[in-house]
Amino acid sequence: MTELDPVAATLDAVHRELAPLDEGELAGYIPPLLLADPSRFGLAVCSPEGRLWSAGDHAEHFSIQSISKVFAFALALADRGLDAVLERVGCEPSGERFNAISLEADTGRPDNPMINAGAIVTCSLVAGDSAAGRFGRILSLMSACAGRDLTVDEGVFAAELETADMNRALGYLMRSAGSLTADVDETLWVYLRQCAVLVTADDLAVMAATLACGGVNPVTGVRTMSSDVARHVLTVMATCGMYDASGEWMLRVGSPAKSGVAGGVITASPATFGLGLYSPLLDAQGNSLRSVRACELLAERFSWHAL
Amino acid sequence: MTELDPVAATLDAVHRELAPLDEGELAGYIPPLLLADPSRFGLAVCSPEGRLWSAGDHAEHFSIQSISKVFAFALALADRGLDAVLERVGCEPSGERFNAISLEADTGRPDNPMINAGAIVTCSLVAGDSAAGRFGRILSLMSACAGRDLTVDEGVFAAELETADMNRALGYLMRSAGSLTADVDETLWVYLRQCAVLVTADDLAVMAATLACGGVNPVTGVRTMSSDVARHVLTVMATCGMYDASGEWMLRVGSPAKSGVAGGVITASPATFGLGLYSPLLDAQGNSLRSVRACELLAERFSWHAL
Amino acid sequence: MTELDPVAATLDAVHRELAPLDEGELAGYIPPLLLADPSRFGLAVCSPEGRLWSAGDHAEHFSIQSISKVFAFALALADRGLDAVLERVGCEPSGERFNAISLEADTGRPDNPMINAGAIVTCSLVAGDSAAGRFGRILSLMSACAGRDLTVDEGVFAAELETADMNRALGYLMRSAGSLTADVDETLWVYLRQCAVLVTADDLAVMAATLACGGVNPVTGVRTMSSDVARHVLTVMATCGMYDASGEWMLRVGSPAKSGVAGGVITASPATFGLGLYSPLLDAQGNSLRSVRACELLAERFSWHAL
Amino acid sequence: MTELDPVAATLDAVHRELAPLDEGELAGYIPPLLLADPSRFGLAVCSPEGRLWSAGDHAEHFSIQSISKVFAFALALADRGLDAVLERVGCEPSGERFNAISLEADTGRPDNPMINAGAIVTCSLVAGDSAAGRFGRILSLMSACAGRDLTVDEGVFAAELETADMNRALGYLMRSAGSLTADVDETLWVYLRQCAVLVTADDLAVMAATLACGGVNPVTGVRTMSSDVARHVLTVMATCGMYDASGEWMLRVGSPAKSGVAGGVITASPATFGLGLYSPLLDAQGNSLRSVRACELLAERFSWHAL
Repeated sequence: MTELDPVAATLDAVHRELAPLDEGELAGYIPPLLLADPSRFGLAVCSPEGRLWSAGDHAEHFSIQSISKVFAFALALADRGLDAVLERVGCEPSGERFNAISLEADTGRPDNPMINAGAIVTCSLVAGDSAAGRFGRILSLMSACAGRDLTVDEGVFAAELETADMNRALGYLMRSAGSLTADVDETLWVYLRQCAVLVTADDLAVMAATLACGGVNPVTGVRTMSSDVARHVLTVMATCGMYDASGEWMLRVGSPAKSGVAGGVITASPATFGLGLYSPLLDAQGNSLRSVRACELLAERFSWHAL
Repeated sequence: MTELDPVAATLDAVHRELAPLDEGELAGYIPPLLLADPSRFGLAVCSPEGRLWSAGDHAEHFSIQSISKVFAFALALADRGLDAVLERVGCEPSGERFNAISLEADTGRPDNPMINAGAIVTCSLVAGDSAAGRFGRILSLMSACAGRDLTVDEGVFAAELETADMNRALGYLMRSAGSLTADVDETLWVYLRQCAVLVTADDLAVMAATLACGGVNPVTGVRTMSSDVARHVLTVMATCGMYDASGEWMLRVGSPAKSGVAGGVITASPATFGLGLYSPLLDAQGNSLRSVRACELLAERFSWHAL
Repeated sequence: MTELDPVAATLDAVHRELAPLDEGELAGYIPPLLLADPSRFGLAVCSPEGRLWSAGDHAEHFSIQSISKVFAFALALADRGLDAVLERVGCEPSGERFNAISLEADTGRPDNPMINAGAIVTCSLVAGDSAAGRFGRILSLMSACAGRDLTVDEGVFAAELETADMNRALGYLMRSAGSLTADVDETLWVYLRQCAVLVTADDLAVMAATLACGGVNPVTGVRTMSSDVARHVLTVMATCGMYDASGEWMLRVGSPAKSGVAGGVITASPATFGLGLYSPLLDAQGNSLRSVRACELLAERFSWHAL
Repeated sequence: MTELDPVAATLDAVHRELAPLDEGELAGYIPPLLLADPSRFGLAVCSPEGRLWSAGDHAEHFSIQSISKVFAFALALADRGLDAVLERVGCEPSGERFNAISLEADTGRPDNPMINAGAIVTCSLVAGDSAAGRFGRILSLMSACAGRDLTVDEGVFAAELETADMNRALGYLMRSAGSLTADVDETLWVYLRQCAVLVTADDLAVMAATLACGGVNPVTGVRTMSSDVARHVLTVMATCGMYDASGEWMLRVGSPAKSGVAGGVITASPATFGLGLYSPLLDAQGNSLRSVRACELLAERFSWHAL
């Protein structure tokens, strides 16, 4: 990477421009997230050829949180097929927050797999003999997409389990509505454990690029999911990925995306790029403030709008 | 067009396959729409080079209805800029029907410009000295996109005015919430008149292709709007165009779309194609039944998913 | 009235205690209400024998506003019967504010006759050849209950008409839902004109006592409505009269009540008393602050809880 | 009781008139309730002097279900005082069904103690060292009001525990909102166990009469709660007791009431009477069909409307 490389230069420029931004707040819903260093800010881009550019704290580890929903959804689609999955979880934006109690009146389906309720049902649709088996398959898929063996932050996982009242409520609501047929405690164990997997901005960039390349990891060359599954995943990220700000994100940035409450963001444009970002200070919508701003700047400079 | 032309052959095949489908119902909300011939079914595709293929009743005239919202929104964006428009109307899916009373709690903004409430505000944002002036500019833009002078069906317009209680209610609600500052009766006059403009499936194909070509009508070569406006319009069609079925449409078809209650549909993929369809029998969501099915078949056969 | 009269003494004590209270705000939704003197505070009690006790600004005139809903409802019940009225307007608390858009999903009925939407439908159910005729009958009933000829404040009425966007929206919504079949403008004319009728705290006390005496004005001895109608009116006041604070009112005070935005309150206990109050400073719920506090004190001192 | 006793004659007549009514359905939400004999129908009235009249299956045992909410609420009021209880559970009608997810936006309080969410919080407010201790005190109060030692149907209790997904969801939602601070499983144990207490129509009549007599059991002469608590309980029954049909009940019957899903109903008018009914066939609102109809007939014949 020399000064002449325009991608590297742009990443560096965006990093320099946004690093001083110290607005926003650390996520407070579980104690370990409050220990994050608010000055951290990392970015990485991965091309369809598998080339990786990075800037800032791109190798810093943090928990993947809601970005894991994307990969559990991919596995459920691969295991059950689109129609079977849509019978149990919708694909429409809810117009509401991540923890909305948005179950369809007639079917009890949660609105989409990117809100917590939908992600919990999604976990229950992943094939496996046991909770450990289902989680193991989700971890394997995430690892294949990242191109390395990912691990769980046990401290974060323990904290998630302790503060899961709202997710437990969603689980019992869906049991009661008939949309969740699995055991609530077991399903939450899978869901919360996948949220506690550790990644870096570099990992997220490669994972995003894998989606952008129709399911083939462009660094390792390994196919992780079918191209249909990758397309369906990106589509749901486009319409539902940023919760009740998805429409504005598509106008301002234009590539399907998903954020996590620990400060991670992925966004990907088919056959064009995968982007991973990390910065733990969150805006009022619960999205990583520097990361969102960085995506807007990069979208402007690279004109990568998907439409 | 010979047998060897694959586009013509596919359109003919889809028309042949779906013409016998006689499920669904005519729109009953204004009397003139009940007079439509339920057997009518027309399709047209326009390429970025301006070549047009058609099948079935592609030259049949019908009222454009809600598809007009797309062009009023384009004009409001051109007149005021994205930020000023977004101050008055949101860009998030409402998760609800076309006539939803979805105003944001704090701002009174309607959720997006594709639902009736948002389209009414959008009309009020089009520049012009009078209702007639604003309508004239919307008609001019639609005509430029179609490549011919479009006209109003006065019978349909009169019927719309007579049955406008719900839209009038939305207008007064938004006046009361401060999100509509213009006169309700004048604004409804513009909105309902734009809905009564007559088009054909051929017209809609060219109009869609104009959006797909960044605002340049590929048949006439005339620029009708900036490429930024065209992109913003397509983005909002992608996230909000098919009301509470937009997410599933993007999964199943994959290109931004808008339907009208008289049976018209447009859908467009950037730099790829514009498609116009007409068939007056509607499904339970109020979308043209044969047209939706035709888009699904064509998406499958041409693999034109935008993501 | 001598010092020995315990009712007079209690009213005076309550007036003395609460007159210094200058919290709350004048109603701002129409300009004339902002001209009220915030120090005004009047109380009056009328016994079933027609004896009247008063304190403070009991003879001050102000517009009756939403308290008029009680009498329009009484007249609709007398004209159509309970069952016919309940087909068009519900009798359940809405759990919401006075201007809630609370129409039943299946019938389009407004929740109850004490919210604006229900009061508008109620006006349309009052018999009469014309808007003027219907209003005249409502004014006559209110006058009979007060025992004197009441008149309209034309300035308040003109201001109401000018700022009626929300009520007009409710009217068109109900037209659209089929629950209002009359003309919106004519019905609003009746509704807003009844709101602009001038009364005093003395008037309200006699009007409340008329309800408490099964429809017979205890001062004039004139029967104004049947005892069934009076009971039905008091019942709806008990469950819906104080909007989303009706349950707490029944716990703290215990007698059916209705408030108006100009600062009036009536409350009545069957065969026990009628109470009229006036003070224009409103609390956060839009109820007269001193009047509510006075009712709580009087309920405590007289133990007049209805249950 | 001779033929000359008008109360006995009226109860017999109402029983004779309604016994043939075989519409409605048995409650299906727990299996034991489906085993009830649909022909059962019992009524009992208890006067303020403690005299009891009965008709039909007045000695048949059934589970008290939601009628228990009334007595848990009484105990919470006695233990904590009205203000402390209202800080944790509201007193406003929710305008919704018994299992509504109606938590106040700002406080997380359930709307009122008669819906399940509010009854669960109420249980947690009853004083006691343990779940067993709290339940024991609720059972003692119910026994004192009935004038005999009541017992639990262990089969019904076991079935309740097995099908408690919705109530468990409500519990975790309220934990998450901060309005329930106790353990969910322990609180549900108390709540579901109180629902499984066995009573007869005779018991319910005496319990209702105890409320009507300001907390003194008119048969045993024992004071079970203060007169303030009894009045507060009756008031909340009046505004919220029959869920989303409370307003119509007060119009048609006029005395505060509470129903249970096993087919029981109590209704009481201060200083006038207590009424207990049982018939397991339910109407569409989940209220005992014959019991509701019987209350309407009795209200008409005895003119016992509270207002």
